[in-house]
Amino acid sequence: MNPGRQPVIAGIGETEYSRESGRSELQLAAEACLAALRDAGLPAARADGLVSYTMDSSNELELQRCLGIPVLRWTGRAPFGGVGCTASIQIAAAAIAAGYAEAVLVWRALNGRSGRRYGTPEASKAVGSGGKLHYAMGFDTGAKSYAAEIQGYMRRHGVTSEDLGRYVVAARTLAASNPRAIYYDKPLTLGEHQSSRWIVEPWIRRHDCCLENDGGAALLVTSAETAGALGKPAIVLGAAAQAHGIGRRIAYDVYRTEAEIADEQAALVTELVRQSGLHPREVDVALLYDAFSPSVFTALEEFGICDVGEARHFINAGETALGGKMPVNPNGGLIGEAYVHGLNNVIEAVRQLRGSAANQVAGAQTALVTGGGALLLTRS
Amino acid sequence: MNPGRQPVIAGIGETEYSRESGRSELQLAAEACLAALRDAGLPAARADGLVSYTMDSSNELELQRCLGIPVLRWTGRAPFGGVGCTASIQIAAAAIAAGYAEAVLVWRALNGRSGRRYGTPEASKAVGSGGKLHYAMGFDTGAKSYAAEIQGYMRRHGVTSEDLGRYVVAARTLAASNPRAIYYDKPLTLGEHQSSRWIVEPWIRRHDCCLENDGGAALLVTSAETAGALGKPAIVLGAAAQAHGIGRRIAYDVYRTEAEIADEQAALVTELVRQSGLHPREVDVALLYDAFSPSVFTALEEFGICDVGEARHFINAGETALGGKMPVNPNGGLIGEAYVHGLNNVIEAVRQLRGSAANQVAGAQTALVTGGGALLLTRS
Repeated sequence: MNPGRQPVIAGIGETEYSRESGRSELQLAAEACLAALRDAGLPAARADGLVSYTMDSSNELELQRCLGIPVLRWTGRAPFGGVGCTASIQIAAAAIAAGYAEAVLVWRALNGRSGRRYGTPEASKAVGSGGKLHYAMGFDTGAKSYAAEIQGYMRRHGVTSEDLGRYVVAARTLAASNPRAIYYDKPLTLGEHQSSRWIVEPWIRRHDCCLENDGGAALLVTSAETAGALGKPAIVLGAAAQAHGIGRRIAYDVYRTEAEIADEQAALVTELVRQSGLHPREVDVALLYDAFSPSVFTALEEFGICDVGEARHFINAGETALGGKMPVNPNGGLIGEAYVHGLNNVIEAVRQLRGSAANQVAGAQTALVTGGGALLLTRS
Repeated sequence: MNPGRQPVIAGIGETEYSRESGRSELQLAAEACLAALRDAGLPAARADGLVSYTMDSSNELELQRCLGIPVLRWTGRAPFGGVGCTASIQIAAAAIAAGYAEAVLVWRALNGRSGRRYGTPEASKAVGSGGKLHYAMGFDTGAKSYAAEIQGYMRRHGVTSEDLGRYVVAARTLAASNPRAIYYDKPLTLGEHQSSRWIVEPWIRRHDCCLENDGGAALLVTSAETAGALGKPAIVLGAAAQAHGIGRRIAYDVYRTEAEIADEQAALVTELVRQSGLHPREVDVALLYDAFSPSVFTALEEFGICDVGEARHFINAGETALGGKMPVNPNGGLIGEAYVHGLNNVIEAVRQLRGSAANQVAGAQTALVTGGGALLLTRS
């Protein structure tokens, strides 16, 4: 790749995260994008791309008007919900690398608490062309279908609800010292986790689920060349990859074997290494998509940060804490900080590499972000 | 750009176009994709990307299983309906140029006749977060909102229903000799056009509207390097661009001025020239998005193929026929061949450059495809 076209992240922006934003999702998207532009020092007139998730409700052309972008040269949407937190960045990066755009805003904004809550079943998903087989079978929320998917892993490796609780307590401890977090100043004890109600017994308790909140998040992806001209240090997108194995999403992955998952993950890790020369286990900090707490356990193993079946010991030994072998989700993650469909974790990775995070990993030079696909970010 | 990473189109595939496919949209998508792979001589096991429109009903992971793609490395969706026919190709091309994927299938499949018909109002579009202001005002189909948008142009330049009819008759004449066309062997007279019922009086008659049909279309986008190894001549994607001006889609562009449209188009043409060194008016054949017949008139002017206000004279003089200055939609276009949301026009452009079209423009070396954005294709 032409070094000038190297994709970098030059700006980050967020609204407050709350339980009732009091404004539209389009307004939240616009505020987050304007904050990312301000952070980068780039006027809106020079932005020329807008990328989001297929699930985002805001229209590119309406957002363009809100922001004052004269001509939009690049649009695209990442499918599959949370996968969007890495795939949307990759779609923006591809435009930069190809020279199709110069300054692409990636956004995700939702009233996930005051509006439709992800924890609530949605009848429209059970029927019609967008209908999902497993909805009609009673797996009508993410927690239910995910629990069906993850119970095999938990049984095989003896992962208990208390093991999950120890991760959640650690995440909530980090969130408690992150002023941006919904759970700022609200740590959780293991007893509170263990006495929280079952969402799907005996796998997922209330506190194993990510937040339902309102808020918007945005990042500005541009080229190394343009970022250099802005005179601010940008974070380099060393690698961006998706890898969807062939057996996915039959009734939400319930029927997948460990071998299939391992093959898919091997492809993803191989691609990250190919692009960046860096293995995910070598990074200084990891932002692991935690829509539900068990996904941190599987991600630690799938990315080779610890051995298969060892995540519970790795976490229990404190290795994912700030001073551990691999600090994980120092913002509190999606369970402790906010659920902006994972995009807030990408922002936290940028903050860590800038050295400006609330819970800073000392001297962090490289970061992994996961969510369906994965990103590897480097300080320079 | 690394010449090996130059995006090319190496395969095309379609189902039959019909009024009742008798099978699901996912099935149509899979058949079209398999046909594109066969055409390219590439096994499905080597495909690694799937791109479509946000409006397409098929899920990437389900389509992946149908096709037998082991690992999917790239997904993305193009927003805005018909814009997808150029933007989806661009999203695939960006992945190739960036090195994020090696063989990306772009598909669009719909049961547009036996399923939901685009000419029918849809209550869900009038309300909620996806609601459009103009729907509640009675502009509840594409024909109605487009007529409101285009009436200014038609009045200013004295474009009559008979002028439109002459384009439609020409398109139907071409479709009549294209065995793939819904209107194969069914030419139309100007009298029949003029006696067809008004859809929006006095602007749009029934025969000014594109078809409502079932069918699937797909293209395989890969790198020059991979196409070279397949040993078949591929069509080079010389340029791919979107350019959305800031004033778009307030009640479906009704309030836009000619100056605003001209600015937007200038940006698009400038970008096409920058990427390819070729001006759209220099190509040998043009595939112009004709969801409604007036859009051919405005495209001819906006891309500088004729002067502003001169399209009706250009068409009436036969300049868009096969032997004219700029042959337009030799497949019969979306009015005469089929409406696969414009993707069939990209396929026709490839056929023209391969020299294998039903109505072949002799020696065509370069082609323009429009639809929101634009593509410039070249034979080598």
